[in-house]
Amino acid sequence: MTLLDETVKEIQPQDGAWREKAKQRLDQLTMPHWALGRLMDLAMDLAGMTRSIRPAVARKAVVAMAGDHGVAAEGVSKYPQEVTPQMVRNFVAGGAGINALARLAGAEVVVVDMGIAGDVSDLAAAGKILSRPVARGTANMARGPAMTRQQAQQAIETGIALAGELGVRIDVFGTGDMGIANTTPSAAILACLTGSPVEDVTGRGTGIGDQQLLHKIDVIFRSLAVNKPDPADALDVLSKVGGFEIGGIAGLILGAAARRKPIVVDGFISTAGAMIAHLLCPACAEYMIAAHRSQELGHRFMHKHLGKLPLLDLNLRLGEGTGAALAMHLVDAAVAVLTEVATFEEAAVSKATK
Amino acid sequence: MTLLDETVKEIQPQDGAWREKAKQRLDQLTMPHWALGRLMDLAMDLAGMTRSIRPAVARKAVVAMAGDHGVAAEGVSKYPQEVTPQMVRNFVAGGAGINALARLAGAEVVVVDMGIAGDVSDLAAAGKILSRPVARGTANMARGPAMTRQQAQQAIETGIALAGELGVRIDVFGTGDMGIANTTPSAAILACLTGSPVEDVTGRGTGIGDQQLLHKIDVIFRSLAVNKPDPADALDVLSKVGGFEIGGIAGLILGAAARRKPIVVDGFISTAGAMIAHLLCPACAEYMIAAHRSQELGHRFMHKHLGKLPLLDLNLRLGEGTGAALAMHLVDAAVAVLTEVATFEEAAVSKATK
Repeated sequence: MTLLDETVKEIQPQDGAWREKAKQRLDQLTMPHWALGRLMDLAMDLAGMTRSIRPAVARKAVVAMAGDHGVAAEGVSKYPQEVTPQMVRNFVAGGAGINALARLAGAEVVVVDMGIAGDVSDLAAAGKILSRPVARGTANMARGPAMTRQQAQQAIETGIALAGELGVRIDVFGTGDMGIANTTPSAAILACLTGSPVEDVTGRGTGIGDQQLLHKIDVIFRSLAVNKPDPADALDVLSKVGGFEIGGIAGLILGAAARRKPIVVDGFISTAGAMIAHLLCPACAEYMIAAHRSQELGHRFMHKHLGKLPLLDLNLRLGEGTGAALAMHLVDAAVAVLTEVATFEEAAVSKATK
Repeated sequence: MTLLDETVKEIQPQDGAWREKAKQRLDQLTMPHWALGRLMDLAMDLAGMTRSIRPAVARKAVVAMAGDHGVAAEGVSKYPQEVTPQMVRNFVAGGAGINALARLAGAEVVVVDMGIAGDVSDLAAAGKILSRPVARGTANMARGPAMTRQQAQQAIETGIALAGELGVRIDVFGTGDMGIANTTPSAAILACLTGSPVEDVTGRGTGIGDQQLLHKIDVIFRSLAVNKPDPADALDVLSKVGGFEIGGIAGLILGAAARRKPIVVDGFISTAGAMIAHLLCPACAEYMIAAHRSQELGHRFMHKHLGKLPLLDLNLRLGEGTGAALAMHLVDAAVAVLTEVATFEEAAVSKATK
């Protein structure tokens, strides 16, 4: 059995008994019933995931998966491909958005080369990033499959393995991404898996104008027409119109779910990875926490497909894991409510009279 | 000149030059333009408030103002009035929702007796709360004014004075409230100041059922009919259908604005206080950060009236300052983005090509 098959087999839904134990306490807290709303829903989820009414959430990591995309050659992004390794260097130097926001959330940033086209071997040699490239960038999906089926499996299993390695010292994962042009494969995955028209789910990514957006829609349309990915076969979809970092994110989610650890899913690219993971194993969605609703057009359709309601809505469209880092404060808050607030009995406060 | 008049005179709008300086840096950060959306808007606001591109936000306090309401005698709440002092004791013991969430945000909780009906003199004597009662609860507004005009002014000036005292050691304020029945005067203030029909802006507070909601609407309707508050006169509105803690919150906002300090405004009761402050001095709204959109029905109308877009929407309806404490993480995040993220030049990252 492959690592992927084994992992999928290990994943169990949230535990209803632990959810109920959490609910019993939350029902008794010194406040009007369920007055902290979604924090309390999240607290129940965390109890169900971790099988504990004191869910461990102290040790956090945002895993920023980087990869390049052959489809960048079609001119779908505002930025040149060299920006992928440049931004990875920025992550390592601590100067990117994710560094600032992860620091604030008390989360480590783990940078993974899943398949960067440029040379970052010095960073790998210095131990600054994890070097797990499937290949030096995907092929151009507008002309054929982005990768082989074997590479798709390798990308996912790399993510699973990473969840295993990090899982010994990390309680809560966050997903992140870096890869010029990666909203293009993400929108292709979304269109394929939901059957939505490409033009309805394709957004402006880094901020392209109207003309370039029309071109991007055309490129995605052609990619789907050329490759005909099978929406019932996650490996087929990932291999034909995906990316290495997207596969890595899917694997990280599956690995976290198998280890019963919460995983905070960031923006559009991360949620494309979540859709691949969900297709492989629907139960893994019970370990996902949707961090935020991105400004990227199609993100809401992804959440709808996954049955997830994001926590934040702040017009973010950066990726990197920045939304996941922000949402980690709410994970901490949910646990604080569950574990630190007194019950009516403990605090000797009168209950409702009506 | 009264303290209130002096304070209103001191309040200046945000400084456009400092906003522009912040924008210049934010425009150059290593990310697609404005990709951190509302965090960047907030960073500009903080620069405009504090006249700095390194806004001081480290030292935080949530000021929980407590007061009782004569209108509780009409049976508008699910809880008995004794819960106000009981919950204040819970705040002091550290067992309430606000304690858990303020701890997480690194914020001090300052509890103020603005006019609790029960006896909390032991807490005041022990220095656990600030004792600034205007009176031992308001009068029943369904039968006449809740307080005198002089008491309304005293409540506001108490809040202003507190902002002055705390301002020497606090960078960011959060508002909070505790007071059984206080959604009733808050909805009355809202209906009066916006001219909205009472039934459109009255919510379920602590979670009352349909019958009690109809009764609450009737009580608010009668309170407005009996008192005829003048919607152009903030002191008249506060005195006739307000509360001592609502006045205190209004004063805290005015005092923070006069000191050019950001003030994070919590839920329905806090925003009723914000409406009073705004009527006294519209420019003070430029120092308000709307923390969240409460589950309480009328909250969105308050934000619309103030021209504010709340940061969070998590189905909260607790008050106490809990939403303000949660939003303080976003204040920190906005400053981290402004001060810790590298520019394209600093990080040697290529800019957009199109």
